[in-house]
Amino acid sequence: MTSPPPAPFSRYPAGSAAFPHPHLLGLAGLQPWEISFLLDEAERWVDLGRSGAVKKADVLHGLTVINAFFENSTRTLLSFEIAGKRLGADVVNMHVAQSSVKKGETLIDTAMTLNAMRADALVIRHMSSGAVALIADKVDCPVLNAGDGWHEHPTQGLLDALTIRRRKGRLDGLIVAICGDIRHSRVARSNMIGLATMGAQVRVAGPATLVPQEVELLGAQRFTRIEDALDGADVVMMLRLQNERMDGTFIPSAREFHALFGLTATRLALAKPDALVMHPGPMNRGVEIDSAIADDPERSAITEQVEMGVAVRMACLDVLTRKARGAEGWA
Amino acid sequence: MTSPPPAPFSRYPAGSAAFPHPHLLGLAGLQPWEISFLLDEAERWVDLGRSGAVKKADVLHGLTVINAFFENSTRTLLSFEIAGKRLGADVVNMHVAQSSVKKGETLIDTAMTLNAMRADALVIRHMSSGAVALIADKVDCPVLNAGDGWHEHPTQGLLDALTIRRRKGRLDGLIVAICGDIRHSRVARSNMIGLATMGAQVRVAGPATLVPQEVELLGAQRFTRIEDALDGADVVMMLRLQNERMDGTFIPSAREFHALFGLTATRLALAKPDALVMHPGPMNRGVEIDSAIADDPERSAITEQVEMGVAVRMACLDVLTRKARGAEGWA
Amino acid sequence: MTSPPPAPFSRYPAGSAAFPHPHLLGLAGLQPWEISFLLDEAERWVDLGRSGAVKKADVLHGLTVINAFFENSTRTLLSFEIAGKRLGADVVNMHVAQSSVKKGETLIDTAMTLNAMRADALVIRHMSSGAVALIADKVDCPVLNAGDGWHEHPTQGLLDALTIRRRKGRLDGLIVAICGDIRHSRVARSNMIGLATMGAQVRVAGPATLVPQEVELLGAQRFTRIEDALDGADVVMMLRLQNERMDGTFIPSAREFHALFGLTATRLALAKPDALVMHPGPMNRGVEIDSAIADDPERSAITEQVEMGVAVRMACLDVLTRKARGAEGWA
Repeated sequence: MTSPPPAPFSRYPAGSAAFPHPHLLGLAGLQPWEISFLLDEAERWVDLGRSGAVKKADVLHGLTVINAFFENSTRTLLSFEIAGKRLGADVVNMHVAQSSVKKGETLIDTAMTLNAMRADALVIRHMSSGAVALIADKVDCPVLNAGDGWHEHPTQGLLDALTIRRRKGRLDGLIVAICGDIRHSRVARSNMIGLATMGAQVRVAGPATLVPQEVELLGAQRFTRIEDALDGADVVMMLRLQNERMDGTFIPSAREFHALFGLTATRLALAKPDALVMHPGPMNRGVEIDSAIADDPERSAITEQVEMGVAVRMACLDVLTRKARGAEGWA
Repeated sequence: MTSPPPAPFSRYPAGSAAFPHPHLLGLAGLQPWEISFLLDEAERWVDLGRSGAVKKADVLHGLTVINAFFENSTRTLLSFEIAGKRLGADVVNMHVAQSSVKKGETLIDTAMTLNAMRADALVIRHMSSGAVALIADKVDCPVLNAGDGWHEHPTQGLLDALTIRRRKGRLDGLIVAICGDIRHSRVARSNMIGLATMGAQVRVAGPATLVPQEVELLGAQRFTRIEDALDGADVVMMLRLQNERMDGTFIPSAREFHALFGLTATRLALAKPDALVMHPGPMNRGVEIDSAIADDPERSAITEQVEMGVAVRMACLDVLTRKARGAEGWA
Repeated sequence: MTSPPPAPFSRYPAGSAAFPHPHLLGLAGLQPWEISFLLDEAERWVDLGRSGAVKKADVLHGLTVINAFFENSTRTLLSFEIAGKRLGADVVNMHVAQSSVKKGETLIDTAMTLNAMRADALVIRHMSSGAVALIADKVDCPVLNAGDGWHEHPTQGLLDALTIRRRKGRLDGLIVAICGDIRHSRVARSNMIGLATMGAQVRVAGPATLVPQEVELLGAQRFTRIEDALDGADVVMMLRLQNERMDGTFIPSAREFHALFGLTATRLALAKPDALVMHPGPMNRGVEIDSAIADDPERSAITEQVEMGVAVRMACLDVLTRKARGAEGWA
């Protein structure tokens, strides 16, 4: 299924010179047309990935992309590494475990060092909210936020939006229920912002301890019963419950969480009959989501999300480096 | 020394369309001609590796090879990484230490994730026997087993067969003694299966605790005195004694093991005068093998095994991806 | 600023066939013209890195560079990895944490293994002085020392020399003060040797426990008051104080070290008005160096050092592989 032309309010201006942001630090502050533009660009890379054996483009040949991950990650790092390599870039990974950070170097000094190696793009994951923006302020090249603290994870927000848009044909007017640990989730945050920007109606649901009042400032409706949030929803997005939240501080136990908030067939029946089920992974099967739902090819878009992740990251790396490559404008 | 044409029983059929297996999970079940075919293909890459500075082929350009190692490895990972890169693939490594597996994700979910990133080949090492086959069952691309539990390590079996075939000119009819910890060794298992398939006469020897009766089901002769196994052997393959076996459970001590089973000059004299000495590495010098033997360029093929490893892995990656690349048939 | 022609005594011979050393194990033993030659080669790569988006040369296409790091490193590994990739090589990293070394393999066996994979260059970091030379003795390809114990770190010495030469226009006759923990610093050692070879006057200063008498054998003047070393200096090179030295064995505390040996504005005023400030990183701000000095773009060359690091490593990889590539002679 290919995407339709963007909705009018998200149509990007004819004849514009370029995507107007130097970095991708979050979805907050992006215009609808800017998000549409990134999603449209990503579509091209979805097609390339499916077009047979050769998945390679040459657009970043000779450029250096540094993935600096100050927090462990498998999926996101792998996804960015594959994206960079498929675009022809030289990709190097900097792992926190071997990092100078352990030696007491300041974050800004680390940024200056990466910059001095003449990186053409920096992909940064950090455990502190705002750390990526701090780095972006100090370097000469585009910075992509691969997740910072509880703040944002914009490429996850974009890949989720792309997955929904491809399955549902649109984003505006959809009811999207995001369920689970909202408080500690940068995924939830980027999705709330991105989907609301694109005209979707976002609901969030979870235990009261895990759903802060502040979500209403982001345009989301707040529920403490998942059933209310699921009622009539077009999309159900379940979040991963971190093990460290299951120790009694936030919820009594994983079993209790499943009883009250896990996505079961009974609960899913409250949503629209063709409601889409999503999860950013890795899943705790039997905790936040039942296996039968996760594995239902009609309802679940979970593996498609992973595929869209590579395409979205290719699009962001391509678009953000265009200025330096002298390749401004629309592709 | 180059290899002779394959022995009649291992000659592969004229006009065949392709190597008939989608994955390489083990040597069990492969026909003699299929093993011969992979060894013949590997010969080409040995030549390339020795032909000067440029060691690069372009056959996997634009393809993504993911090395997913759920168990630590240096040599095998390095060998597969070099093999993939020399073929022109984009190679990405996923290390267990940062893996979602630690977050409780099921193996199948991990497999689905790797698959959704549109990998063109997955190289998997896992501590559990059968885990690699489980993954292969769930993905769309070729899977290569880089060692699973005590089960198989097929590329090691192939590289050992190639090393022997190049040094001895043939495999059928040779007497090969595999000595040491047979029970816990996937290397021994793949060699027993592969060499027996190719018509060699395989003997295994080790402490009774480390040589299960079941080896006879794989066509090997079982010995509990190394001297009996070495008598008249063409090839002596010593296995690494894992440190965790030396704690008294299986053998009293490393010193005792060396006294009874270590390869000394005296023991080696029982084998044929031109017997070849092999070891999959890393070696415990002075435990399973004496240094003078390991370092004897006439007798020892240990570093040649490493070289053959890269060539064999190039051959397997090339052959298994031919179907998807539309490059079926013999090279 | 580009470099002037080399000083007469460091001019390299007309018509010479090649850089005459197979490895780069240290700066000790190099002739002035050999160091000049490597610096001149590095200048070319500085220009490439600054010349826009495409930073790629094709000179090592098809070659395999293995970075074998037996000791953790972020900056140096990243720098060598970027250097190798920008030259078009296939670069593979071997991390100590997964290494067979932990399984008790000897260093020479590890070297033989890396060699058998037909590496075209080995970049080695090791915690033991002399380990890199031991490996170089056993392999067929060029070996680059990326730091061995307290011995040498020659590419750091070269990148510091290049940074100084570009800023000051020359090396001979300059007064360079190296301050801090001289005893445990391979950086200090390579700089003392390299700069003295190029005709600079090297002073070292630090607490008496950290500045051995033996520095005088390397041609350096020894001071135990930093003020004396700074007096009239053209270049002030501060070393990193390792946390493990601050425990009272070598110095009473970090605070005490700063009080007596930290580079403050007052102390820097003793040096020449245009004295250059350097640090190999990562910095302990407020311990060995004050932030205001580190961040002063006029005085500090700290980020430029990082940039020169990539260029110097490209030059060394290029020059040392020329013989095998049939590309002997000057570029």
